[in-house]
Amino acid sequence: MSNYQAPVKEMLFAVKELAGLADVNRLPAFADATPDLVEAILDEAAQLAADVIAPTNTIGDEKGTHIEDGRVRVPAEFAAAYREFTAGGWGGIAQSAEAGGQGLPYLVGLAVEEMWQSANLAWSLCPLLSQGAARAIEDHGDEVLRALLLGPMVEGRWTGTMNLTEPQAGSDLGAVRTLARPDGDAYRITGQKIYITWGDHDMTENVIHLVLARVEGAPEGVKGLSLFAVPKRLINADGSSGELNGVRPISVEHKLGIHGSPTCVMAYESALGYLVGELNRGLACMFTMMNHARLGVGLEGVAISERSYQDALAYARDRVQGYAPGHQGRVSIIHHPDVRRMLLAMKSHIEAMRAVAYVTGACLDHAHHHPDADSRARYQARVDLLTPVVKGWCTETAQSLTSLGMQVHGGMGYVEETGAAQHYRDARITTIYEGTTGIQANDFVGRKILRDGGHALQTLIADIRAVDADLARHGDALGTIRGGLADGCDQLAAAASWLLTSYDRDTSIPGAVAYSLLMLAGTVAGGWQMARAAVAASDRLAADADDREFYEAKIITARFFAEQIMPVAVAYRQAIESGSDTVMALSEDQF
Amino acid sequence: MSNYQAPVKEMLFAVKELAGLADVNRLPAFADATPDLVEAILDEAAQLAADVIAPTNTIGDEKGTHIEDGRVRVPAEFAAAYREFTAGGWGGIAQSAEAGGQGLPYLVGLAVEEMWQSANLAWSLCPLLSQGAARAIEDHGDEVLRALLLGPMVEGRWTGTMNLTEPQAGSDLGAVRTLARPDGDAYRITGQKIYITWGDHDMTENVIHLVLARVEGAPEGVKGLSLFAVPKRLINADGSSGELNGVRPISVEHKLGIHGSPTCVMAYESALGYLVGELNRGLACMFTMMNHARLGVGLEGVAISERSYQDALAYARDRVQGYAPGHQGRVSIIHHPDVRRMLLAMKSHIEAMRAVAYVTGACLDHAHHHPDADSRARYQARVDLLTPVVKGWCTETAQSLTSLGMQVHGGMGYVEETGAAQHYRDARITTIYEGTTGIQANDFVGRKILRDGGHALQTLIADIRAVDADLARHGDALGTIRGGLADGCDQLAAAASWLLTSYDRDTSIPGAVAYSLLMLAGTVAGGWQMARAAVAASDRLAADADDREFYEAKIITARFFAEQIMPVAVAYRQAIESGSDTVMALSEDQF
Repeated sequence: MSNYQAPVKEMLFAVKELAGLADVNRLPAFADATPDLVEAILDEAAQLAADVIAPTNTIGDEKGTHIEDGRVRVPAEFAAAYREFTAGGWGGIAQSAEAGGQGLPYLVGLAVEEMWQSANLAWSLCPLLSQGAARAIEDHGDEVLRALLLGPMVEGRWTGTMNLTEPQAGSDLGAVRTLARPDGDAYRITGQKIYITWGDHDMTENVIHLVLARVEGAPEGVKGLSLFAVPKRLINADGSSGELNGVRPISVEHKLGIHGSPTCVMAYESALGYLVGELNRGLACMFTMMNHARLGVGLEGVAISERSYQDALAYARDRVQGYAPGHQGRVSIIHHPDVRRMLLAMKSHIEAMRAVAYVTGACLDHAHHHPDADSRARYQARVDLLTPVVKGWCTETAQSLTSLGMQVHGGMGYVEETGAAQHYRDARITTIYEGTTGIQANDFVGRKILRDGGHALQTLIADIRAVDADLARHGDALGTIRGGLADGCDQLAAAASWLLTSYDRDTSIPGAVAYSLLMLAGTVAGGWQMARAAVAASDRLAADADDREFYEAKIITARFFAEQIMPVAVAYRQAIESGSDTVMALSEDQF
Repeated sequence: MSNYQAPVKEMLFAVKELAGLADVNRLPAFADATPDLVEAILDEAAQLAADVIAPTNTIGDEKGTHIEDGRVRVPAEFAAAYREFTAGGWGGIAQSAEAGGQGLPYLVGLAVEEMWQSANLAWSLCPLLSQGAARAIEDHGDEVLRALLLGPMVEGRWTGTMNLTEPQAGSDLGAVRTLARPDGDAYRITGQKIYITWGDHDMTENVIHLVLARVEGAPEGVKGLSLFAVPKRLINADGSSGELNGVRPISVEHKLGIHGSPTCVMAYESALGYLVGELNRGLACMFTMMNHARLGVGLEGVAISERSYQDALAYARDRVQGYAPGHQGRVSIIHHPDVRRMLLAMKSHIEAMRAVAYVTGACLDHAHHHPDADSRARYQARVDLLTPVVKGWCTETAQSLTSLGMQVHGGMGYVEETGAAQHYRDARITTIYEGTTGIQANDFVGRKILRDGGHALQTLIADIRAVDADLARHGDALGTIRGGLADGCDQLAAAASWLLTSYDRDTSIPGAVAYSLLMLAGTVAGGWQMARAAVAASDRLAADADDREFYEAKIITARFFAEQIMPVAVAYRQAIESGSDTVMALSEDQF
């Protein structure tokens, strides 16, 4: 098992050349975020990830978490890593300066976050959720609540959680039953929540739970849900943590992977809670948190695939087995064409996925901080459109990539000690939590395409098509990539147009085609970024830049994507255009 | 977690309508294997699988295996199930009557074997390997060896193993170093073998190891390998098991799945062994065993997907969540279009995979027992061609199907207690052992296509195309299926013809395109069988058969395959026709 080294050069390429760091840097809010500063930050983060966090990954998988004396214990190594992490101020890197953060662009926060996720996915969920919770409080909490909670949360002295799911209410949040009873200025929360990531632990003195609950007498369904901040320990007048509140972990789940992340069943018994935002507007508040979290989980797909790739690559360079054309004697397996195919499928997908995630992150920065309101709205529409794509496509792809990572190891991959299997197990949660792929797909088709008549998607397609001129500039050298992208675009445009003209034929159509359209959009978006990468690399080579091998590899990797990945676009389109008749035809008994 | 019930009706449909049981029954060797008898056998096997074997599945996963006093211990429940299994004579169901078996067709053996595999994959590996070992001894052992070993092995009193791999010799068997030193009529074997499935256990009194080793002074590489039968306990003159031989398990692997199957490192120290077959022809003897085993492992892909499907289906019928078009109030999730899509992807693939595996099994019966030598050769060519397809395509597909099985469960799928994750973990070994998918793909392209100039493949394609007339007979009702199959055939034919005319342009081409061609062939073969199933079902419906719902479901499921699965054929073809330039272009450092 090799250790993790953050691919800083790849990340910088994506941040600068594809996600447009210079444009983000031009936003007044991020005038300090110069390329030099960002490079220094990534280097520093890479060191922390490699030296401090990555070594805890196997430990967490093997030791797991458990409940002792009614409280969750995580491996001691996790707490040590978390201390170094908060001491460096990493928890607040992309939080606003007003909230006590570093005020750096979300784009930079994403690149850094990818490192923690690669280093130890289970551990990284704690800061991920804490940042989301802090952001929800900053955006929706009143002044008193912000003053009470934000400082320690952004600092990392307290962590945060997101409490939505109940046994009968998973994807269907309208079924939430947890009750909130008014008690003076505050509320008393009673109910049970499940699947609460990092719901309890012994790394910090306090945990702030954001809890969806229904105030007595509120309407049925999602329109009667409010959001509450419920501290694990009551907060004293001086801001310190005091007595335990009426909330406790009942059990931790025995899961396929992310063993180091305690997934708790939480019991609330008259727990003191503070309303966050308006009454009965809890879901909207939660969505602030959830959209960031969805982008973050999409990024997990990139991060875990990257770590799996690094292990597979190290093994392929090291393992000697068999003979290969053009080589004398036995060779390391990286010389076998089929092993190269697997490694290239990983490498090209990872670069494509990373670029799509980072580009979406940069759009979020513009959406929040662009001086012009129209521009903000335009960027926000792009973020809204791409968030389910990043979440759905990157995490689904991560399943096959971490599987390839094992496959490269052969029999060794199936033996747990190698570590390849852990990535495969860890990755499997990413298509499930923060909304399953089915939920992302329905969001994409329903809210992001049909609701605006396909406008945001058509704008995206036009932007993708605009790359054609750049590709053409480089002539035959990028001809395959150009052809692949044009074909992918045609498939996406045709499928979208079919959907827009056919969806009202049958109410089942959007749901039946949603998954394929989401995967098609992800594939084309990935090809778009790979094409842009090939153009940028070709420009560098034409300008006689150093590091020719790096830029040449970029072009080859983009060509692989065009040749071997993009062709699946036509298959998705055909599946979409078959509509919903067959999908809906079987009776329940005929399955 | 629901218990497993063998899908006997589906199996009988595949055995009779697709694999042609009646034709097999017409072979003199199988005159007794009437449809009625086969149906009775499947019913009996289904009961044993459900009542006795399936309940041990979770137990094996949780308890695993360990070494105690130098010997491997498996869960006591396994031994109890094994006793009932052997008492019923199931171990020898498809072994020849001369060897003490039931002498039933291999086709029937496959259907029954699928049940054990679904019921408990880890457990089923013990009889699978024992049968393979017995077959190798029957085919290649001399009379003395057959008399000594076959009886107890076929009876199931002794089990068998397959010892190929060494730390430096995995896919590359030429690197095997285990030594055999002549000692009288026998040999003394010394060396270490790894990944030995059921290498030791406490279910039977003896274990017969088939071991690849090199006699002192033999040529380098695979041409110096011989095969030896090495008993765990020496065999007394009266045929009983005596003292321990010089072979012992050193450790059992800690694996991602199949925890109930002991994967052993075996140490041989001057262990007494008997030569099986001719000196230095060990690999050829081993291949007898391996080809059966590969078909058996391909079937595992079907079996584990089937069990995963049954669990997902039960959950989807039971779990109430959200609203669906056309339904009042909350619905069980089987009514959501995206859940139906997932279930249909599982159902249609499983039926296609099962049919391809059974059809190959029937060909094997004809290849061994057809009275006409030319026919035998023709059937053998089909078996040779389809064996890597069954192994490679069914096991690769099982990865995505068992993943879908988890996905249908949502968050519950990630919790180990649900059981869905075990199928996913168990399935993951199937693309690795008995030759990785890469090895299958190279075998398919190199030995099965290029070596005969594509003749066997073109014969297959012609057979597939011949179904078109049957489809046309049913007019528009099967129009989508007809179009899908014709298109898939075109892609396969084009890709094969590209390969045959291009492979000698670059020595890397066969290896670079092999995976995609194998998957393309599997997809088209699956579509072929689904189309045949739709024709058979339509014929039944036209003849006013009972059970209309079953036959209508067959047609709908075949249409789903044509609409949503077959379109990927064009993507594989495009990937193939991109050749090897890009795959080979990166230097080792550029990855």
